[in-house]
Amino acid sequence: MPAETVVAFEELDAAARAACEIAIVANPRPQDLRAMPNLRLVHSVWAGVERLVADLPDTGLKIVRLVDPQLAATMAEAVLAWTLYLHRDMPRYARQQAARQWLPHDYAPPGRRTVSLLGLGALGAASAAKLLDAGFRVCGWSRSPKALPGVECHAGDHELVAMLGRTDILVCLLPLTPQTRGVVNAGAFEALRRGASLINFARGPIVDDGALRAALDAGRLTHAVLDVFDREPLPADAWQWAHSGVTVLPHISAATDRTTASAIVAANIRRYRESGIIPAAVDRAAGY
Amino acid sequence: MPAETVVAFEELDAAARAACEIAIVANPRPQDLRAMPNLRLVHSVWAGVERLVADLPDTGLKIVRLVDPQLAATMAEAVLAWTLYLHRDMPRYARQQAARQWLPHDYAPPGRRTVSLLGLGALGAASAAKLLDAGFRVCGWSRSPKALPGVECHAGDHELVAMLGRTDILVCLLPLTPQTRGVVNAGAFEALRRGASLINFARGPIVDDGALRAALDAGRLTHAVLDVFDREPLPADAWQWAHSGVTVLPHISAATDRTTASAIVAANIRRYRESGIIPAAVDRAAGY
Ligand SMILES: NC(=O)c1ccc[n+]([C@@H]2O[C@H](COP(=O)([O-])OP(=O)(O)OC[C@H]3O[C@@H](n4cnc5c(N)ncnc54)[C@H](OP(=O)(O)O)[C@@H]3O)[C@@H](O)[C@H]2O)c1
Ligand SMILES: NC(=O)c1ccc[n+]([C@@H]2O[C@H](COP(=O)([O-])OP(=O)(O)OC[C@H]3O[C@@H](n4cnc5c(N)ncnc54)[C@H](OP(=O)(O)O)[C@@H]3O)[C@@H](O)[C@H]2O)c1
Repeated sequence: MPAETVVAFEELDAAARAACEIAIVANPRPQDLRAMPNLRLVHSVWAGVERLVADLPDTGLKIVRLVDPQLAATMAEAVLAWTLYLHRDMPRYARQQAARQWLPHDYAPPGRRTVSLLGLGALGAASAAKLLDAGFRVCGWSRSPKALPGVECHAGDHELVAMLGRTDILVCLLPLTPQTRGVVNAGAFEALRRGASLINFARGPIVDDGALRAALDAGRLTHAVLDVFDREPLPADAWQWAHSGVTVLPHISAATDRTTASAIVAANIRRYRESGIIPAAVDRAAGY
Repeated sequence: MPAETVVAFEELDAAARAACEIAIVANPRPQDLRAMPNLRLVHSVWAGVERLVADLPDTGLKIVRLVDPQLAATMAEAVLAWTLYLHRDMPRYARQQAARQWLPHDYAPPGRRTVSLLGLGALGAASAAKLLDAGFRVCGWSRSPKALPGVECHAGDHELVAMLGRTDILVCLLPLTPQTRGVVNAGAFEALRRGASLINFARGPIVDDGALRAALDAGRLTHAVLDVFDREPLPADAWQWAHSGVTVLPHISAATDRTTASAIVAANIRRYRESGIIPAAVDRAAGY
């Protein structure tokens, strides 16, 4: 960005901070953002911006989130990888290996399994396409109605339970908002097919921890793959580490790619300077 | 097969056994086959027929093996699933979970990884297509030269080492023959890229067990996913069960689908009766 002066926050004095118009951030401290009262644009290098929405006063300041096809491809790969992990019974075969037990289980082809996506945005739509390619039946859920080829689309709170009733593997790719916090709760686990599994690649608080544990312990839920948690890093005494029905991942499903993300951030800022147009601007009222 | 009389071997007396012309088999006892001297055709419901080739005298008796697109699709899915398992570092994250360790590792996109297939037959070709779709670089090795779109094809013993030198994940889908027995040996592990991994979905004896263990212990090989073994079920005292670098599977990568396989066997037998033509006949000299 030859037209811009790009400086690390730590290297700026108070006056220079006050003069800043644009901030490029990942997970900034709220006080650092408040030290820049002239900001007009905050560009996240992450796709999820719930912290920024909560921390930044709604004063006409624009928040831009990362929408990167490379990120979507990596997330879609992760969704496919861990869906196949569940579909091909890998957790069960790992437990059998630990017990030196040789015991093949029946195989069900992917066309007999329904994978449902909570969230059909940039990441959910890319994941749906990969899952369809792999032969799964795919459902999806969003706030506004959607039409995606091959996907059975549902929208709004009133259509969630019906979709869950047909779901074998539930994949969470929602943003964290006041509406989605705890949406995967006891009622949702009750509504899922018996023996279903969960993959949460979005944000920890979207899933009700206590309800998850109860559903696993009751055998209603077979397995949970969790990449995100209420507190990260996951505390050493958290129950998830040692639960045989849980796979813990350290927030690695889809990390930002520095190369592709830098190019996207630079292009967005150039366009904003030239035309005032902000792609991928966050709707503050919706929270994402 | 209304034109045929289909009877279980156990229900036949000695005279009826002697009159049998066609046998449909999985893993028959050699003495049962010898009890049917008038056999002209033995149709396996498996893709791998090394036992039949070894057990049946070469007297003009034809061996037919299962070539089933459904089996190929299931195997290709297994290859993709366990390639992604290695690609996305699942064994390492599982070890970290057991140690309650939160530690993300760098992600390499699939375009930076080379997956090589030993064997480009019915199963290898289907697997190559799936791996290419997923974005991996794909190499393959066969006896006769092949041309598959997008696959870097190698043929013959003299081209193996060069391919291994570029390989991050090696997938074995060879038939077991005198030529392939032990082909994945100490020299092969030496030739592979440092830190490569192995998937064996073909037959146990194709991989030299001792060399495999030495390569894992020396850290030359990162991980091995083994679905097949010299002795199956894998004996309880086998070293593979407890090795942290080995994933043991109980021969489940691609089981015969009863519905699709029955239809294929029936069609092959009908065609043989009508025209004498045998598709998928085994080349006894080649051993597969
Ligand atoms: N674990 C990781 O490494 C990682 C990496 C990247 C992102 N993420 C997470 O993934 C999330 C999704 O990213 P994205 O780029 O796909 O976001 P996005 O494009 O904004 O899509 C969000 C989707 O969720 C739907 N949605 C939002 N609120 C809803 C509600 N109340 N009820 C039903 N559906 C609702 C939206 O519906 P509409 O289509 O109707 O708007 C949309 O389909 C991010 O917010 C982030 O938290 C995690
Ligand atoms: N684990 C399981 O559940 C499972 C299930 C099904 C099958 N299998 C195994 O998978 C094997 C492969 O099945 P398939 O249907 O793909 O067999 P296929 O169609 O006969 O293909 C065999 C491939 O291996 C190549 N090959 C054979 N001998 C070779 C040698 N000496 N050097 C280099 N390449 C050689 C062949 O080369 P050419 O193309 O030049 O002939 C061919 O590409 C079966 O034999 C069986 O053992 C395992």
